[in-house]
Amino acid sequence: MIEQRYTSAQLAELLDAELLGPPDLELSNLAAIDEGGPGSITFIRSEEYARRWKDSACSAALVSRSLKHNTDHDPSQRALLIVDSADSAFITLLHRIRPEMHSNDGVHPTAVVDPTAHLKPDTRVGPGAVIGPETTFGTGCTVGAGVVIGARCTIGNDTTLRPKCVIEDRCTIGDRCTLQPGVLIGGDGFGFVPSPDGNGLQKVPHAGSVEIGNDVEIGSGSTIDRGKLSPTRIGDGTKIDNQVQIAHNCVIGKACLICAQTGIGGSTTIGDGVTIGGLVGVADNISIGAGSSIGAGSGVMHNVPAGEKWLGYPASPSSRALRQWAFMRKVGLDQLPKAPGDHEKQG
Amino acid sequence: MIEQRYTSAQLAELLDAELLGPPDLELSNLAAIDEGGPGSITFIRSEEYARRWKDSACSAALVSRSLKHNTDHDPSQRALLIVDSADSAFITLLHRIRPEMHSNDGVHPTAVVDPTAHLKPDTRVGPGAVIGPETTFGTGCTVGAGVVIGARCTIGNDTTLRPKCVIEDRCTIGDRCTLQPGVLIGGDGFGFVPSPDGNGLQKVPHAGSVEIGNDVEIGSGSTIDRGKLSPTRIGDGTKIDNQVQIAHNCVIGKACLICAQTGIGGSTTIGDGVTIGGLVGVADNISIGAGSSIGAGSGVMHNVPAGEKWLGYPASPSSRALRQWAFMRKVGLDQLPKAPGDHEKQG
Amino acid sequence: MIEQRYTSAQLAELLDAELLGPPDLELSNLAAIDEGGPGSITFIRSEEYARRWKDSACSAALVSRSLKHNTDHDPSQRALLIVDSADSAFITLLHRIRPEMHSNDGVHPTAVVDPTAHLKPDTRVGPGAVIGPETTFGTGCTVGAGVVIGARCTIGNDTTLRPKCVIEDRCTIGDRCTLQPGVLIGGDGFGFVPSPDGNGLQKVPHAGSVEIGNDVEIGSGSTIDRGKLSPTRIGDGTKIDNQVQIAHNCVIGKACLICAQTGIGGSTTIGDGVTIGGLVGVADNISIGAGSSIGAGSGVMHNVPAGEKWLGYPASPSSRALRQWAFMRKVGLDQLPKAPGDHEKQG
Repeated sequence: MIEQRYTSAQLAELLDAELLGPPDLELSNLAAIDEGGPGSITFIRSEEYARRWKDSACSAALVSRSLKHNTDHDPSQRALLIVDSADSAFITLLHRIRPEMHSNDGVHPTAVVDPTAHLKPDTRVGPGAVIGPETTFGTGCTVGAGVVIGARCTIGNDTTLRPKCVIEDRCTIGDRCTLQPGVLIGGDGFGFVPSPDGNGLQKVPHAGSVEIGNDVEIGSGSTIDRGKLSPTRIGDGTKIDNQVQIAHNCVIGKACLICAQTGIGGSTTIGDGVTIGGLVGVADNISIGAGSSIGAGSGVMHNVPAGEKWLGYPASPSSRALRQWAFMRKVGLDQLPKAPGDHEKQG
Repeated sequence: MIEQRYTSAQLAELLDAELLGPPDLELSNLAAIDEGGPGSITFIRSEEYARRWKDSACSAALVSRSLKHNTDHDPSQRALLIVDSADSAFITLLHRIRPEMHSNDGVHPTAVVDPTAHLKPDTRVGPGAVIGPETTFGTGCTVGAGVVIGARCTIGNDTTLRPKCVIEDRCTIGDRCTLQPGVLIGGDGFGFVPSPDGNGLQKVPHAGSVEIGNDVEIGSGSTIDRGKLSPTRIGDGTKIDNQVQIAHNCVIGKACLICAQTGIGGSTTIGDGVTIGGLVGVADNISIGAGSSIGAGSGVMHNVPAGEKWLGYPASPSSRALRQWAFMRKVGLDQLPKAPGDHEKQG
Repeated sequence: MIEQRYTSAQLAELLDAELLGPPDLELSNLAAIDEGGPGSITFIRSEEYARRWKDSACSAALVSRSLKHNTDHDPSQRALLIVDSADSAFITLLHRIRPEMHSNDGVHPTAVVDPTAHLKPDTRVGPGAVIGPETTFGTGCTVGAGVVIGARCTIGNDTTLRPKCVIEDRCTIGDRCTLQPGVLIGGDGFGFVPSPDGNGLQKVPHAGSVEIGNDVEIGSGSTIDRGKLSPTRIGDGTKIDNQVQIAHNCVIGKACLICAQTGIGGSTTIGDGVTIGGLVGVADNISIGAGSSIGAGSGVMHNVPAGEKWLGYPASPSSRALRQWAFMRKVGLDQLPKAPGDHEKQG
């Protein structure tokens, strides 16, 4: 997949790596350690990977310096390239091989751009995209085919909106963000109160907006609702996976990781650096402290203190949850002792 | 955020409220009780809010009449406006400050409207929207940018379809409905049977439709599949949050509330006035009785009688679920007594 | 709903069925056994349905041959049509009554098709659809309104993409596939590693693609991410329901059934013929053996051997899960015996 072939020595120079092995190996593609063959470069990021190196058919590996001495290696046949971080060096190579996603230059003639929108000369707007009045862009933005942006939105520099995203009126996206296909930003929050006449429900208008910081990624099909008065906020550097739901007035901190299909209830606050697994539900009006982590599939109904790991449905500190799971494992295996009188009481 | 400033006396008149405090306070924005400052109007909807009033920096509060005497108030400095319902009065103000979502008038020249579709003179159709043959609209409808409506659909009066909604052929939407961005109505139900030749699966065609009543709201990214023969039905006044999935042939009653990311299995019936929390799964072919409520994160596998509260995975009446949770809490805290013989049996 | 009326004898001939009852019954619509009336044809697919026949108002029923003698029937009034499979015969009739989904012929003038894309003469492309460079189609394809297909994709024969689907660059869809509205294929995988400067997260580029086999159906709003190096793969004949999430580098086998709102974590492998219920979470980097089944709402955190049924959160073999649920049922009903000393320890 690398268009240009490298020798092992050329790669070592490119990556500023220490080379252990022949300088003239021909390297032509990237591969996982158990999938590649002759000509493949792989990476060794953990002791587990280091152990697998001797059985790999790859010709060369990027190795994190800390694993240099854990990797059993014969330098007469294959090459190790010792780098600070195998992950980062591999990412450098991935950027070289990954084809840019297709995009037209300039504004496609079928796009509908309001005359009062402020595009930069380098803004790329795909076929059929719609940009509303007074919406402004920083430099270096790409708006994919079929994206709809409402009125008075602000899009920062170097931000990419993949096809079919929707950003409703008055929302803000920061710099260097990527919204994957079909992200839906700025729908009304889900708020209803009983009608004064006692007959059905009355909609609570949502006058707030959504404010997304810098370096945020949002996955395909995720939804973020606008706030009632103050905005729903996503902090800098936070990464959100596919089909995540962020309700109105949530405040999500910086550098959080939120995995697929998780939902955060309205007005909940999530601190910086929080990690949340997939398919987690977080109740409304609670707070998840900075640096905490929530296991996949959990249902969080109470505030989580900073730095704690929680797990389970209902979620509790993971030491408790693991004790619960161990107990239930015994129940499943029928290893719990019968308590006296059990037999009589069940009759 | 209120464009026009009000005095406390003007607001009292506007809302038909009893004013306790100075008539000449200048009020210029709406705010939550713990977020606003001088010039802010907030609302007191519960005893909890009433307690917080003395520490609030807001200048005025809308107070539900039932809480008038619970609210510790010094009328020399700040104003209370006593109303029947603080929520409803606040909504009245929210409607005044919420900017209308941007929409063009008339049919945008890039919209593709089949010549046999029946629009009203006031139908607003956004850029790139597509409307199929013989689809009809009531008065006062707005079709957002990039919406796709198939053939022979019926859309009632005063209904709004936000950008990128899809409504497939022969579906019906009632009056005064709002579909938030990216709602997908009328995909085929998920039905397959083993092929007669024993080789793979055969698709069950779905000839039914989707029928959505009046005053229904559906959140961003939700999906409602068409029925096999009879339609999938959503009753009047029901409110559906984001990323909810309603399978083929469900019949959802009136005035239900279904929170985000919940899924209802095929041919399940849900009575009137049912409340379902977020991330709930409801099995196919069961029935949830009128007026019942299902807690967030539950997995409902059996019929739920009318008026009951159920909870948990698997779901059971909430008194049972709470007992289960209390038991598991003890397990987590390692507070369960060791039963005799436990030690021996685990070896 | 059948446009053309049939007599019972005509239907028997059409379906190659044995007729038990009058040959001249007029049959004009299809209906469920407890919904139809005079003139309705229903189906009897199980003993449960066979028992309900005597109370049905339908005029005729398609009956699986194996149930012929279980069905209490008076041939003087109503007709049974004995067929190999009632399901399959009913599907044959459903195909006759189901109106084709609306589609324009040819390429709609508002579609944006790159001059280097390879369409077939019979490719149908709806209004506003966008097709990127070097993308190729087999014969008999339909591209719905507003679909966006990127560069260098390959679409097989007789494949239908319903409105608003997105297929990003370099993805492959096989023959006879149906993507329901709003399916999102080829977003970047969710991969991040700590930045080398210790400051935030670095995105892992995803250079792989998505490869979808033949006879695959994907439900509304589902998302499938592209792989890092090798493709994310969906096997022939697999059926995926609405709002399902398939992460980067998953390999899903043939003839699997994956129900709504289920999520499969990155690099997980699922064997052939696996059935997964709704709202299931499957962890990343695990393996689900061929022919296994996973119950609705489960959270699968470990490898599942071939052919096993698993259930629960955390998931375990279903015999264990059912024992756990039976235990918790007793806890909920307060039927567990009090162990000695319980009272003292809880104080």
